[in-house]
Amino acid sequence: MKDWPDSYYAAIFTNQRSEEGGDLYPLMSEQMVELAQKQKGFLGVESVRGDDGLGITVSYWESRDDIESWGRNADHMVAKNHGRQEFYLWYHLRISKVEMTRSFGFDEN
Amino acid sequence: MKDWPDSYYAAIFTNQRSEEGGDLYPLMSEQMVELAQKQKGFLGVESVRGDDGLGITVSYWESRDDIESWGRNADHMVAKNHGRQEFYLWYHLRISKVEMTRSFGFDEN
Repeated sequence: MKDWPDSYYAAIFTNQRSEEGGDLYPLMSEQMVELAQKQKGFLGVESVRGDDGLGITVSYWESRDDIESWGRNADHMVAKNHGRQEFYLWYHLRISKVEMTRSFGFDEN
Repeated sequence: MKDWPDSYYAAIFTNQRSEEGGDLYPLMSEQMVELAQKQKGFLGVESVRGDDGLGITVSYWESRDDIESWGRNADHMVAKNHGRQEFYLWYHLRISKVEMTRSFGFDEN
């Protein structure tokens, strides 16, 4: 978080994988993370999937506009369609403004 | 999310498990989730841990004050000490105000 702005946004994406899209999902998922990192205002991402198929991905952005722009990216829109049609049983995307951070055991990042 | 307020807060806890505290960790972790659910302002929680030990827990609260109060709960403070001393290599806790939600495939919760 070195060099991160004092004020920034978190896009909290919680989701439940379906049993479909087995080969395509990891491919598109990785592509989306790589593509997100090239977008204006991207700060970082943390992502976990549990054995039960529940996933949480939190991405961090300089502004809410940056998140909205990423949402309108053409390749991302294709991926989101796949998400609704096959990858996910449900998801929530919450856009939130980070007001305070407490960290432990970190010197950088 | 039925009956959730229009405005609420998310506490985003991202963390990396150490290899210590093996028996104690799942016990305390479960206790803390149960205890959190009894606190004023608690709305919900989503939690995932990956095979690599990276974990993300997002809890949702009516206000930032409610999150701060939970942080000062005596049992929670004991658990946080264990967290720093043995359970986690690092963590970030980010307190954020949810401004917008988009959901898919959900009728309730």
